[in-house]
Amino acid sequence: MSYTTPAEAMQALRAVEAKQWALSHAMNMIVYDAATAAPKNTAEGRGHTLGILSEYMYGLIADPENQALLSYLRENESALSFEEKREVELMKKTCDQLSRIPQEEYTEYEMLLNDAQTVWEKAKNENDFPAFAPYLEKIVAFNRKFAGYYNPDLLPYDALLNEYEEGVTMEILDAFFEKLRAAIVPLVEKIRRAKPIDDGFLHRHFPADAQKKCAEYLMEVLKIDRGYCGLAESEHPFTDNFNNKDVRITTHFYENNLASALYSVIHEGGHAIYELACDDKYTRTALAGGVSMGIHESQSRFFENIIGRSKPFVFAVYPQIRAFFPETLADVSAEDFYRAVNKAEPSLIRTEADELTYCLHIMVRYELEKRLIAGTLSVSELPAEWNRLYKEYLGVDVPDDTRGCLQDTHWSGGSFGYFPSYALGSAYGAQMLWAMKKDLGDLTERLARADLTDVKAWLAEHIHRHASLYQPSVLLENACGAFDPDHYVRYLTEKFTALYGLSLQD
Amino acid sequence: MSYTTPAEAMQALRAVEAKQWALSHAMNMIVYDAATAAPKNTAEGRGHTLGILSEYMYGLIADPENQALLSYLRENESALSFEEKREVELMKKTCDQLSRIPQEEYTEYEMLLNDAQTVWEKAKNENDFPAFAPYLEKIVAFNRKFAGYYNPDLLPYDALLNEYEEGVTMEILDAFFEKLRAAIVPLVEKIRRAKPIDDGFLHRHFPADAQKKCAEYLMEVLKIDRGYCGLAESEHPFTDNFNNKDVRITTHFYENNLASALYSVIHEGGHAIYELACDDKYTRTALAGGVSMGIHESQSRFFENIIGRSKPFVFAVYPQIRAFFPETLADVSAEDFYRAVNKAEPSLIRTEADELTYCLHIMVRYELEKRLIAGTLSVSELPAEWNRLYKEYLGVDVPDDTRGCLQDTHWSGGSFGYFPSYALGSAYGAQMLWAMKKDLGDLTERLARADLTDVKAWLAEHIHRHASLYQPSVLLENACGAFDPDHYVRYLTEKFTALYGLSLQD
Repeated sequence: MSYTTPAEAMQALRAVEAKQWALSHAMNMIVYDAATAAPKNTAEGRGHTLGILSEYMYGLIADPENQALLSYLRENESALSFEEKREVELMKKTCDQLSRIPQEEYTEYEMLLNDAQTVWEKAKNENDFPAFAPYLEKIVAFNRKFAGYYNPDLLPYDALLNEYEEGVTMEILDAFFEKLRAAIVPLVEKIRRAKPIDDGFLHRHFPADAQKKCAEYLMEVLKIDRGYCGLAESEHPFTDNFNNKDVRITTHFYENNLASALYSVIHEGGHAIYELACDDKYTRTALAGGVSMGIHESQSRFFENIIGRSKPFVFAVYPQIRAFFPETLADVSAEDFYRAVNKAEPSLIRTEADELTYCLHIMVRYELEKRLIAGTLSVSELPAEWNRLYKEYLGVDVPDDTRGCLQDTHWSGGSFGYFPSYALGSAYGAQMLWAMKKDLGDLTERLARADLTDVKAWLAEHIHRHASLYQPSVLLENACGAFDPDHYVRYLTEKFTALYGLSLQD
Repeated sequence: MSYTTPAEAMQALRAVEAKQWALSHAMNMIVYDAATAAPKNTAEGRGHTLGILSEYMYGLIADPENQALLSYLRENESALSFEEKREVELMKKTCDQLSRIPQEEYTEYEMLLNDAQTVWEKAKNENDFPAFAPYLEKIVAFNRKFAGYYNPDLLPYDALLNEYEEGVTMEILDAFFEKLRAAIVPLVEKIRRAKPIDDGFLHRHFPADAQKKCAEYLMEVLKIDRGYCGLAESEHPFTDNFNNKDVRITTHFYENNLASALYSVIHEGGHAIYELACDDKYTRTALAGGVSMGIHESQSRFFENIIGRSKPFVFAVYPQIRAFFPETLADVSAEDFYRAVNKAEPSLIRTEADELTYCLHIMVRYELEKRLIAGTLSVSELPAEWNRLYKEYLGVDVPDDTRGCLQDTHWSGGSFGYFPSYALGSAYGAQMLWAMKKDLGDLTERLARADLTDVKAWLAEHIHRHASLYQPSVLLENACGAFDPDHYVRYLTEKFTALYGLSLQD
């Protein structure tokens, strides 16, 4: 097929992008329904449908005509705008990745993931790792194979990392985690010797209905437009964006844990704020949506921790939170609450981990993923190795796989190379805070009114509105200079030193 | 394309059918989400996606290759089994209908319906018919045009009726409704002169949470497997079947109306029971799912009215229902409850209408649809004409369009010719009861234990398992003889004569 002009070819590409978004919307909707509303024995029918929609997606993207279109546009790049060039580059990347995977494998993989989700949920509930193991083995094998398709010049795990955060490698992460470890391990050790914080009251009985109202209140504080953003329940909290005018976040209410749902709502709310603020001009194109997992996690963890667990913000929202549980929290002051939600203590569950020890959980998963994909760790060895690393890094004994290697949904969902982006995101966020304060001055007064207007405006201007226009490293550099993990180390050190009344020179 | 054997061609057809089910699943899921969970301002994104999925559907079904495949199979019909012949016939019908509609019109219509749904909901809430009128005008115009595409040899409204109930015409319906009217109008008049039934207690305050638990209880009584059937909330109750192992029903809880949600759950539960019992061998083929709207309504209304409002069944379930509202219903006996849920009184809202006057609501809609499609009634005249007919048929004054011509979702959803199937379904159901009793004997004792095992087994055997294998009239005839509305007239007359203590000779 030949095109008269690059402009005409761009029109043809836009039509492909629109179809791609429609098929994604449909598939994500079915998966979202599965996680939030579907009856429990309905996986088989979903599998058939997702398989066929995947075939349509494959046919659309890997189509030789689409490949010819992209080649034509690359050859005529000089006629394209900066935005169009990036659009073509991203579509080319998607096309290359997909067309390198044989269609049968792609379809088989989608169906496997659908089944694995149901099996994982059951295995987690019943502490039955062996039931999930055969699925995980297949998922690991697929990912190892796909890594070779994605980029045969990279080590398999580097190729997978690159899917979530362009340009990140094991070399970079090993250095980043080593720096973090050097700062955090001694800090955690000092905290172990300090006076412990009492967070027992967070585990009193908090009825789900009242927690739901409290979650709605937090959505208001975050000024998330509910006309464009849903809030539902699922086993594991997540955010889905069907487009920048239809975002859904989920949470899970534990009646014996108040902080869990509250902070997962703020976390997922951060993801939603990002998606909702992407510029409309990119909607339903390859430039739509958040650019990478790392940048996405920087936003979710910025709202969850840097804002949501800051002293002035906690003091601002706590009176309202207490009003939902007036008797249960009658004896708990804002100071008590602030200290409790920041208590640093090595524990078992990543999603319940405190801000400080969180990255230790990530390091365990990073180590295990590296070795699973490299083939130096087998799935059958995973539970024991998980437990060994938790003892080594966090000093805790893992009592069962439910609270061990079955706790996260990522591997059953086929995400290998995703976990490090949580730690990267935290570090990006601390760097954004530093830059934001240079522009806006001290935030204390605004946070003490729970007023996030300026914070959201700064992020929208420097990060959100650009959607996927810039590569993550460029976006970060434009907003706050080249990536420098020292901001994160300094942020954690100052916050937890003050919280536990330690001396910086201790 | 040529096929070596009819068997090979059937395989190719099955692949088309599987894709058709997958695209339907995706589209229905998005529409289901819109009605049950989506944030309120998300219609635009859905419209884009539904438009593109409709294009895929159109491309699949109207594809010349698919048409050639169907022609080949029709030419080689003698080599096909009875089931295969019907499968080809149904696919041919779908293909003819769709390929007669130009693709742009089809896509435009799907997007119009998506918008119309949102506009209708708002218009209904705000009693603003003029806001909805332009959408309704377009929907009527499309339907009139589509009727010509479906079957240019029929009158437009007959062609639309045929979509919902094969073979039904205005001639048949005029006669059916005339017979009903002749029996019901005098009966309603007698009831007007009888001692009124007090149903005031049904409108006390019934908290939604307790009603939800009560709805779950009724799902158990109906023995609906919740592993395959969801229960959600929406503005207007409905049933969706993604396949025979994934069915969703919805209801709406009004805190000042206990009977509404309870009986809508039983009604939608009847639809679900039908879909869930369709034979697995038809799944994801053209033979899957209930055969027609009339047969479907026969099932929903059978469970809702013939079973759900029968004296022994109400006496069986009422103690459990009362247990959810022990104080509110303390002074209400099973007899009071039975009489109240059967109270016959002309009213405004179809979905809240009693079993006896229900068909008068249908007759109003039938009259108006006939004239809208014939072009002898304009959309702007609709509210006044609706109100006039309600006065004439039911003797009631319609106070606003919210409780008038905006009350139903059907027209905003593009369904013209659907309403009569409710009345047909009621009549089919009464005939099935008559046949069932011939086979099973008196049902009183079983219903007094709320034991629906035999009833469900009879329906599964004679109706449900056949899915779409037989035309509605054939299915009915095999199960209980040729359609004879006298069973329905007799059933209504006997039930309401006894309820109101009238004499049959009055």
